[in-house]
This record gives sequence, structure tokens and C-alpha cells, in this order.
Amino acid sequence: MECCLPGSTFHHLNYLDMPDPRSVEDLKNALKRLPGVGPKSAQRMAFHLLERDRKGARQIEQAIGQALTRVNHCVQCNNFCETELCEICASASRNSQFLCVVETPADLEAIEQAGVYRGKYFVLMGHLSPLDDIGPDQLAIKELMTLVSRNTVEEIILATNLTLEGQATSDYLCELLAESQIQVTRLARGMPMGSELEYMDPGTLNQAFTNRSTP
Amino acid sequence: MECCLPGSTFHHLNYLDMPDPRSVEDLKNALKRLPGVGPKSAQRMAFHLLERDRKGARQIEQAIGQALTRVNHCVQCNNFCETELCEICASASRNSQFLCVVETPADLEAIEQAGVYRGKYFVLMGHLSPLDDIGPDQLAIKELMTLVSRNTVEEIILATNLTLEGQATSDYLCELLAESQIQVTRLARGMPMGSELEYMDPGTLNQAFTNRSTP
Repeated sequence: MECCLPGSTFHHLNYLDMPDPRSVEDLKNALKRLPGVGPKSAQRMAFHLLERDRKGARQIEQAIGQALTRVNHCVQCNNFCETELCEICASASRNSQFLCVVETPADLEAIEQAGVYRGKYFVLMGHLSPLDDIGPDQLAIKELMTLVSRNTVEEIILATNLTLEGQATSDYLCELLAESQIQVTRLARGMPMGSELEYMDPGTLNQAFTNRSTP
Repeated sequence: MECCLPGSTFHHLNYLDMPDPRSVEDLKNALKRLPGVGPKSAQRMAFHLLERDRKGARQIEQAIGQALTRVNHCVQCNNFCETELCEICASASRNSQFLCVVETPADLEAIEQAGVYRGKYFVLMGHLSPLDDIGPDQLAIKELMTLVSRNTVEEIILATNLTLEGQATSDYLCELLAESQIQVTRLARGMPMGSELEYMDPGTLNQAFTNRSTP
């Protein structure tokens, strides 16, 4: 067969190093910077944007540009914000005696959607994670301490995730706050609503038994 | 506890409809247009870009802008291209008697990296998929037929994927090309290199037995 290289099934010399044009390669490399996106996903995304959804590509381009320009941190709670003070911090109807410390804006959102909390927040923007080079200086812990020292907070509710990193962050904050006169609490641990004992992990069952209460 | 809404654990009235600033919401919505990205991934990506990698965000923004402006289709093979004719189509060292039809640029790249083929290509940019509203008109089939009719192609190698959609596309092209005098072939079917019988699916084993050859 004349179309094939002579006598070689796995010949690695004659292939093009970069069959895709420069801009497509650049786009794939850029998309790989998104979390959870590897070379294959990046390729699929680049193909999709260029071949099936150029309008969507333009939308992403503009949204990134706009967000980079406009989004900063609320000077009080450290959440993402387009103004100096975010909506919650600026609100007079939120009780500023309570400060709920969360890892991310998504956590804050989840609590807001549960509609159970009317105090204020502080967003750390992450958790301690030495493996990812995220120590206390990479989180907004200094800002939290400043806020706590000058504010009228009476109770700090530590609402970090119940993961290893979240708990380490919570423990670290507990130590820092031990000297202050402020009451520090954490979210209750136990069985989540709708759960079945059969499928519950030992750690949760352990907490559920330890923290059992009268009905 | 004064911080809580009275007497309600699951109160859905008082939550904020959009706790994130407008630009963050826009960014999340834009990122959802990427294939395989749902609301949770989009949120994680937006957070990552804004909090951990603003440089990367700028890189993505610029790469999209550049790709949208520069990347078009090669007038001959329909692959992504920044010039009128792509590198392979413009090359004098490629045998234009052979035309290999693939679904995507990634497929072309895989064949190039195997280094086994020295003919030319045609990139359909997808496969027939009625469920996704991709029919013959959404693929570059008309362009393929034009190329075939005016060119000196002697053999067309159908190298679509061995998925249902890929095979349907291949069957459709076979029918269209039946009237022409050009020889139409398809890639061999059988056991992939390095595979073990024990883990092979029945369809592949079936093909491997049917197409068996003397060593």
C-alpha cells in the first residue's frame, strides 16, 4: 500500500509535531489551567468552542474579562464583591453579633439557601492545605483576626467543611481565637437528613452516637 | 439562638437569590457552555480563576479571543487552519491519491502520531448524531463530495470511530460514494495491540475471528 511508510507499523519519525494551528494549541493549553481539565478535556473543549459554539466562546471570553476587571473582595467579609462592601455586610437586617466563618463563596451560598442563618459571614477563600502550598498566609486569616478584634462579634460559628483540610483549618482558628473573649462554636455533627444508617460511614455514626440527644 | 430564623430548620424564603456578584454569576453561566461542565464544576472553575489563578484566567480570555479571530477551516481538508490551506494539504510530500476521512482534528492527530499514513485527509468535524441535531448538513459532507469529484483521489479510507455514530457516518458516506469510481476502504477491525482476550468485548472478538488471517 503506497500510502504507508515502508515496512513500519509504529514509525515515530514522520509525524507532525503540531498538526493543530498555533491558536488552537494555545487555546488547549490555556483551557488546561481550569481545575479538573486535562489534555483530552481541553482538546474536546477547544474543538467544541471552535466548531460548535463560537457564540459561547465569545461569551466566556467576555465573562472572564468582565469578572477580572470588576470582581474584588468585600473589605469586611472577604467574599467576592463588585463594590467595597458586599450586600450581606451592607445589610442592616443581618445580626452582626454572629460571624459564620466558611471556606468558599459556595459554602456561604449553601447556608443562605437553607435560610437558617441571619448573622454575618467571613469567607476564608480556601482551607489549609500544605500539599497545595496553602498555609495561613494564603488564607484571609489575618483579615479575620482584624475584623474580630475591632468588631462587636459575640459568637464565631466555624462552618468549615468536615473534610481533613476543613477540620485542620477549624482547629487552627480555634487556637488563634482561644485568647479572645468571643464564644467559638462549630456546626453540629451527626446523621444528615434523609440518610439511612445502613449506608452511613463509621465516622458519622460515631459522632451521631456521641452527640445523641433526647427527642 | 438569635442568629437563626425562629422555629424553622428548612425555611426557603429568606435566602438571597443571588449571593454572588453579577460578574461571578455571568462567569459561571458562561463556563457552563463548555462541554462536560455542569453548575458545580462551573462554580469551582470560577472560584479557581478568580481566587487562585487570575493570570490563567487572562490567558484563557486571550487564547479564546485569538482563536476565534484566527482559526478557520482549510479550504481543502476542512481541518482547523490559520491560513487558506493547511500544512498537510500544502505539502508536496503527501500522496494525494489517498484520502483519509476522519471525524475530528484529534483523530487526524492520532493517525499522524502513529506515523503510518502519508496520504491526505478530510476532516468531517463530527459524526452523524440525530439526537444532537447533527445531520449530513451539519457535517462537511458536501465539501467532501466536491473535493472527491474534482480531485485525483484513487482511494478513500474511511477512518471514523468504531462507535455507533461513527459507523453510521461511515455507512452513509459509503452509500454516497458507491456511484463514484473511487475505491472505498475502511480501517481493519480486530484485537488492539497489547490487548488480552480475557478482557475483550464480544463485538471485537467477533470481528477478530471473522477477519482472521494467516500469520
